[in-house]
Amino acid sequence: MPLKDTNPRAVGFVVEYNPFHNGHLYHLQQAKKETGAEVVIAVMSGSFLQRGEPAVVSKWSRTKMALANGVDLLLELPYAFAVQKAELFAKGAVSILSAAKADYLHFGSESGAIEDFHVLHSFMKEHEDKWNEQVQLRMKEGYSYPKATSLAFAHLEAKTQLSLDQPNNILGYHYVKAIADLSSSLIPYTTKRHAAGFHDESISDSSIASATSIRLTLNDNPLPYDSIKKVMPASALEELKQYEERYNLLHTWESYFPFLQQRVLSSSITELASIYECEEGLEYRILDTIAKASTYSEWMNMLKTKRYTWTRLQRLATHLLTNTTKEEMNQLHTSELPYIRPLGMTTAGQKHLRSLKKQISVPIISRFASTNDPMATSELKASRSYAAPLSAESKVDRLNEDYLSFPIRH
Amino acid sequence: MPLKDTNPRAVGFVVEYNPFHNGHLYHLQQAKKETGAEVVIAVMSGSFLQRGEPAVVSKWSRTKMALANGVDLLLELPYAFAVQKAELFAKGAVSILSAAKADYLHFGSESGAIEDFHVLHSFMKEHEDKWNEQVQLRMKEGYSYPKATSLAFAHLEAKTQLSLDQPNNILGYHYVKAIADLSSSLIPYTTKRHAAGFHDESISDSSIASATSIRLTLNDNPLPYDSIKKVMPASALEELKQYEERYNLLHTWESYFPFLQQRVLSSSITELASIYECEEGLEYRILDTIAKASTYSEWMNMLKTKRYTWTRLQRLATHLLTNTTKEEMNQLHTSELPYIRPLGMTTAGQKHLRSLKKQISVPIISRFASTNDPMATSELKASRSYAAPLSAESKVDRLNEDYLSFPIRH
Repeated sequence: MPLKDTNPRAVGFVVEYNPFHNGHLYHLQQAKKETGAEVVIAVMSGSFLQRGEPAVVSKWSRTKMALANGVDLLLELPYAFAVQKAELFAKGAVSILSAAKADYLHFGSESGAIEDFHVLHSFMKEHEDKWNEQVQLRMKEGYSYPKATSLAFAHLEAKTQLSLDQPNNILGYHYVKAIADLSSSLIPYTTKRHAAGFHDESISDSSIASATSIRLTLNDNPLPYDSIKKVMPASALEELKQYEERYNLLHTWESYFPFLQQRVLSSSITELASIYECEEGLEYRILDTIAKASTYSEWMNMLKTKRYTWTRLQRLATHLLTNTTKEEMNQLHTSELPYIRPLGMTTAGQKHLRSLKKQISVPIISRFASTNDPMATSELKASRSYAAPLSAESKVDRLNEDYLSFPIRH
Repeated sequence: MPLKDTNPRAVGFVVEYNPFHNGHLYHLQQAKKETGAEVVIAVMSGSFLQRGEPAVVSKWSRTKMALANGVDLLLELPYAFAVQKAELFAKGAVSILSAAKADYLHFGSESGAIEDFHVLHSFMKEHEDKWNEQVQLRMKEGYSYPKATSLAFAHLEAKTQLSLDQPNNILGYHYVKAIADLSSSLIPYTTKRHAAGFHDESISDSSIASATSIRLTLNDNPLPYDSIKKVMPASALEELKQYEERYNLLHTWESYFPFLQQRVLSSSITELASIYECEEGLEYRILDTIAKASTYSEWMNMLKTKRYTWTRLQRLATHLLTNTTKEEMNQLHTSELPYIRPLGMTTAGQKHLRSLKKQISVPIISRFASTNDPMATSELKASRSYAAPLSAESKVDRLNEDYLSFPIRH
């Protein structure tokens, strides 16, 4: 009997919790019910998120939100996978959940039917060459990557119910693909996303709202906490409030723009071109526009073309801020998963982690101060850049937080 | 008869005007009298100064101060020469004054006797090898460069009245040396510095005070303008006041520290080591200390060792902020003086410049928008970094000021 069977059943999630809200709570509870899992493992992006944005509050605050609301073991999705298009994002998340011996990967999707994902995956495997060819063709025609994949997909005329124009379906497809590619024993599982759409911009009457709408409310509303209290668990709301009170800041791109601007304007064209995702002469366009903008959104509107999605450019902006080069990123991606890093755990999570230690060869790193791994160095650059807009009083603590902190116990 | 004799007699100065004060005015008036010059040419550092500090107000404001108080033609000393130890600083300044066909280089010194400088220069030329050997020896023993030169000098037992422990004597010596090395026809001339010492920290009862004491008063005094009005010409004082009112800022290192910190903490060790003046493993010490400091002065106190002077480390900090690499700087120093850049002129200055154009081969650049010269690129990096702490409202104008501005006419 393999060792694995002695572990309590564990369900895994891939999350950003930006911030944690009732939709996340609902998904988590549903997934536990559906899978009969006793332990909940979540892989969460750290300081910067998939869409190339700073998280509204720190990874540590978001970890507290998660632990208070049902997550037992929270593992970090490293920067090298977190700020990436769906394919690499999914690959990183699946590697970690597999290494952490989750039994299921449970994700929300617009579809809600796992067989759709399996069907699509088989189909795509069969038509891989044709698909790649079509994508290349469309990109040469000047379409953005997502648009090119969407056109290529239409061209293949797959017999599928699955709409790949929807972000969680795309992620879901890549989870299923990564599980197959990595020969992982994870069982993918999906439920239909409840009520709010991923990018909905306003909060409706229901108790469920998208994280996007919560963030927009936080930015624009004079009394934001009144508006969002019905859509977030009380503990998560309290954590959010406390963060803002303590640091006088909720992180948005705007507060990073002066730093980005200074860095870009003191870089050479060669240095800009060496940054990850800076392709096809984008360095000239960046240098040309950034001295003309007073705000981040002004700059992004200058930079935007049909060829690149907003998200793609935001990720590039993040890599510019954190000075993440192609060389560095390629090195991080060619090596095996170097470690698992818990950011927090409950008693059940700790028990799971302890039994993991005896079963797996991937090191479990509980503190960056004890490693020199390049993946950790990349993470530290990101978390230190994340702390840039904080005021002098809290800066030193926050610059060293990620290096010195042990996982949070709940 | 050489063409040069048809020019009106011109006296040259090397200045920082940080800010322009009565001592500068006095020196200028004395020099005109002593040399009988009709035109005053000043070579002035731009955004960052020899001691590795941001200028208290912009080069454009300081140019206005100079033109209102007797300078006819103000030329920029490029960043590549301005933020340097005495030898390169002097070399750059002498090249420019020579190219601009100044007849005299007039400098203030603690000595005040030009023959002392000539005697010392001959002596040093004769004992160059022995001197170099002694300096190397002392540096190997762990002394800072200035201390090592001072010890080497004592060792040589030169028969000279000139004390090389005093900053303006050192600069003066390097002016005389650069004039000889570059076979310049400049005639060096010196007067004893009046009243205030270079680094005096407080303003006394006299109408002369050092720029250092003026800056300290600006930083620390609740009513600084009342205290300094007796030591600055009214027009210069007004310019200073207006700058502070307009931008709500007088530039000090403290306002740059968050930018420096973000840049350093997102750089690799290799990148830090590639920065100009980052030698002997200083990159490790920099990376080790900078996340522990809340302020610039806290950081500098952590970084400081016997081996490096405060000034040397400040220059390194400036190069880190502006991302000036060894490769870049070496390239700038191997080529000939690529241009002369006037920042401002009076009618007399304009006349001199116009006649210069017919006589010299060095290009006169009146606007950076019309050149791609690497020296100008380096200057733009510096002036754009200089604008980093300005608020969003004025940022765009100031980021592009140095690129778009024509010389100021007075």
